[in-house]
Amino acid sequence: MMHANSLGLKVEGKDIWLLDQRLLPHKEVWTKISDVTEMIQAIQSLHVRGAPLIGVAAAFSIAQSAIKGTSAEQLLTEAEHLYRARPTAVNLMWAVNRMRQHIENKSSPKDLVQAAQQIFQEDVDLCNRMADWGAKWIESGDGVLTHCNSGGLATAGVGTAFGVLRRAHELGKKIHVWVDETRPLLQGARLTAWECQKFEIPHTLICDNMSAHVMSKGKIQKAITGADRIAVNGDFANKIGTYGVAVLCAYHNIPFAVAAPYTTVDLQCPEGKSIPIEERKASEVHGIAGAFGEVTWAPSRTQVHNPAFDVTPAALVHRWVLDKGIFDSKQVAQGVLKENVC
Amino acid sequence: MMHANSLGLKVEGKDIWLLDQRLLPHKEVWTKISDVTEMIQAIQSLHVRGAPLIGVAAAFSIAQSAIKGTSAEQLLTEAEHLYRARPTAVNLMWAVNRMRQHIENKSSPKDLVQAAQQIFQEDVDLCNRMADWGAKWIESGDGVLTHCNSGGLATAGVGTAFGVLRRAHELGKKIHVWVDETRPLLQGARLTAWECQKFEIPHTLICDNMSAHVMSKGKIQKAITGADRIAVNGDFANKIGTYGVAVLCAYHNIPFAVAAPYTTVDLQCPEGKSIPIEERKASEVHGIAGAFGEVTWAPSRTQVHNPAFDVTPAALVHRWVLDKGIFDSKQVAQGVLKENVC
Repeated sequence: MMHANSLGLKVEGKDIWLLDQRLLPHKEVWTKISDVTEMIQAIQSLHVRGAPLIGVAAAFSIAQSAIKGTSAEQLLTEAEHLYRARPTAVNLMWAVNRMRQHIENKSSPKDLVQAAQQIFQEDVDLCNRMADWGAKWIESGDGVLTHCNSGGLATAGVGTAFGVLRRAHELGKKIHVWVDETRPLLQGARLTAWECQKFEIPHTLICDNMSAHVMSKGKIQKAITGADRIAVNGDFANKIGTYGVAVLCAYHNIPFAVAAPYTTVDLQCPEGKSIPIEERKASEVHGIAGAFGEVTWAPSRTQVHNPAFDVTPAALVHRWVLDKGIFDSKQVAQGVLKENVC
Repeated sequence: MMHANSLGLKVEGKDIWLLDQRLLPHKEVWTKISDVTEMIQAIQSLHVRGAPLIGVAAAFSIAQSAIKGTSAEQLLTEAEHLYRARPTAVNLMWAVNRMRQHIENKSSPKDLVQAAQQIFQEDVDLCNRMADWGAKWIESGDGVLTHCNSGGLATAGVGTAFGVLRRAHELGKKIHVWVDETRPLLQGARLTAWECQKFEIPHTLICDNMSAHVMSKGKIQKAITGADRIAVNGDFANKIGTYGVAVLCAYHNIPFAVAAPYTTVDLQCPEGKSIPIEERKASEVHGIAGAFGEVTWAPSRTQVHNPAFDVTPAALVHRWVLDKGIFDSKQVAQGVLKENVC
């Protein structure tokens, strides 16, 4: 029988439960997912989000179907539908393909459960290794700024950058997390603040434009964020606003780190300049919409620029926290990311 | 009879009209103000805002009362009520005191109208001088970032920093204004974007955390903001987020200017460090509220830091645009602000 437990996913016996992340932070509603159709609906409606967690959830959905007696032929059809649920989710495709191989190899339902458990456990381990490496870098007494959400809601484990902070806190280091609200989608204010409360990590929420002032007052000793893609030279793309944080850190002599699994390194990408930046819709900047309500405050005709990501050059980064280790500027300049040694 | 016309105030004959700034940018509603009681109500409810404009409106309110036949004794009582309408509005007290002197000197209603007109005209002239000096500094082709609202809504004239941009545009210089939305109260998204549309100045609205990215793409050549208080050494306090903009400008070699009337220089204040920073209520960071609606997206128990202002050190400023001239770092270091030569 299945068993898994993370911040956004609970699996017990034949049952899969998903935390409805659209309702956070105001309501914690867990929904039972009974079949693949319901899982696809949950993925497409952003009920479950975060690339690693979506992959894990899809794998368990296939295993659930198998133990309920679905034929191999039907399982492959279901896997195909899951594969197509979110076109850009690389982790989803990767996880479904692993399950598909097992189905094609005529694995038993028990084997499929084991395969899903393994995908889950691998992500937990990956997060733990990053957290362990990164936590060494954090000192007791540190005020640490983070941007966006990089915690356990998006993964099976403790998360990436936020996982580092959670581990440091678990180890008894006295830290204070400064949470950037992260306009326009407010992942910091909604999700990171919620995770800080969940794990009782002392924290303060600020608007993105307040961090420079807080730095100038000596309250921030380090900053850490996740990454969506890392170039071979150490440049990386992450949520819009990350680059600004890194510049402000450089001005205030505050060490800045990025935390991500090694799979985030794009070996085809020599430097940050070649990373394309997605432009999102204007309504996100004209106002805000979510389960909490919807308001528009800007004039409706006002032209908007809404880049989803920005690129932080390696020159502004002090530490790269990966699952295989923590690396400094010299190592990255020497090509440690390229050589796949980590 | 009275006559005045600004972005937020219209006076004609015996009539005073105020633009209801609470409803901007979605609705432009003008309300007729018939007596001092209604004016006090408008000031206290933020129907009219901006320190210089409040002072001008209060002066016209006294003049209106006088031409409607109110006795000198009653006028002094009304002036006293107006004086107390907003305790921190220095310009309001200054304007009311000027009117009060005229009443005490037994001036005629006509004289009181003239005094109000003069207060209005002085503010118009002050703004024009800043705009003229500042516009020389702006070049055709410039992308110019501004933060918060420093335009004509808060003054009788064209405004301070935004007035500089408006004047450059009027002079035919081809500029593009990058408007920081300015969390938490969104004065950029609501008011500056509205003023840009009003005067057909090409502009793009961005979230505060996007400016670093836009700078890195070479789209911003200059930045200019207003100031709430300027220290003698050139440090200045302004809306939270201004300091971060100045740091980002320094990193990208983008000249940064501050524009304010010389009355903003506090001769008792030797440097920025001694300027107290007001902490505002947490609900402004937990969500947003206005005529456009009200939503809360952060966990309600989350601790918040909400400084209303930050301090930008003179070292990050390239130009101080005052009504008496435009000054550079060398002049300010030599004490031009202290010597009252400008």
